[in-house]
Amino acid sequence: MNSIKLSKRQEEILHIVREDGPITGKQIADRLSLTRATLRPDLAILTMAGNLEAKPRVGYFINPQSAFKQDAASLASQLVGDYKAHPIVVPKSASVYDAIVQIFLEDVGTLYAVDKNGQLAGVISRKDLLRAAIGNSNLEELPVSVIMTRMPNVITVSPDETLLEAGKKLIQNHIDSLPVVREVDQENQLYEVIGRITKTTITRAYVELLDY
Amino acid sequence: MNSIKLSKRQEEILHIVREDGPITGKQIADRLSLTRATLRPDLAILTMAGNLEAKPRVGYFINPQSAFKQDAASLASQLVGDYKAHPIVVPKSASVYDAIVQIFLEDVGTLYAVDKNGQLAGVISRKDLLRAAIGNSNLEELPVSVIMTRMPNVITVSPDETLLEAGKKLIQNHIDSLPVVREVDQENQLYEVIGRITKTTITRAYVELLDY
Repeated sequence: MNSIKLSKRQEEILHIVREDGPITGKQIADRLSLTRATLRPDLAILTMAGNLEAKPRVGYFINPQSAFKQDAASLASQLVGDYKAHPIVVPKSASVYDAIVQIFLEDVGTLYAVDKNGQLAGVISRKDLLRAAIGNSNLEELPVSVIMTRMPNVITVSPDETLLEAGKKLIQNHIDSLPVVREVDQENQLYEVIGRITKTTITRAYVELLDY
Repeated sequence: MNSIKLSKRQEEILHIVREDGPITGKQIADRLSLTRATLRPDLAILTMAGNLEAKPRVGYFINPQSAFKQDAASLASQLVGDYKAHPIVVPKSASVYDAIVQIFLEDVGTLYAVDKNGQLAGVISRKDLLRAAIGNSNLEELPVSVIMTRMPNVITVSPDETLLEAGKKLIQNHIDSLPVVREVDQENQLYEVIGRITKTTITRAYVELLDY
């Protein structure tokens, strides 16, 4: 991925070339009310980075191979905060039976358990519930805190991470759901749950990305 | 999406312009050993369709706005057959207990049930198993055929559909998994199960698409 952070002027140059390229260095300089000499380092950077190509007697134009990567990179920078769904939470003292009822009522695959201050205590998957259901006779007495994946072993995501980073966490950790959290107290690892990102979120983003 | 099916010659022109554009019509004609007059209708079509742009005294170049769409369209045409995972199947006479064991052994979310000829009979989700587990005392006696989603109500996908079409089916039908099938007998709706596409497959494709 093109990871160079462009300056405001470089972004302006790219915009001009995208709209009106091929265009000469002189024409770009005129549009920006700058001299060619002032612009030369920016044009050199954009050409070296592969954003622009230059051709004698033609001028600068967008590198067609890079056009896809630039657009995809901007899509990759879509944020978790903009895509997160509403989190479905239960108290960590809730029974496994009540958790199963919630799974069906809310039509979700994963529940988040919270402590009495409303902070993330654990995550409960359909498989956790299934394992409990076949191994225990009294699901109404068994609290979810016994069967859940507990903090600090829960993989979370913050609202300012990208959807791409969230997708990687789902794949690499073989999980279906990530609680979107806001840090309340770093030292004690206290997190408020403010959303969820699931493989459904990512599948929907994939369809949106390609289906225009 | 640009849905015009391009001719072989038009694809060749795009390839030349992508590699060496901006390039004049005369130069393209020379590269293809054709006259400019022969090429004129192709260049007109590519320009009207938005693949190419033309500029006097410069020539033809790739429309940067279209470059992303063309690449994304080719990604959208990646086929289910190339992405499918191995299907995990159980006989439709298997017990719910055995199906739950399979879910944990194979680490999958959905099982496909087959009849005695090996053809698709139904689909069993974690929620189907969970519902059965809390409602029944003897899971070893209960066959999965009682709790599964049965044919012809199962949504399937064929290996020559695109991953985008598979993603849409998952989202639109609120399901996690699609059996990839090959038709054995259309009239009697008999299908052989040859793979699976899940939200995990699509999430992995999303990450691959953006993480270069």
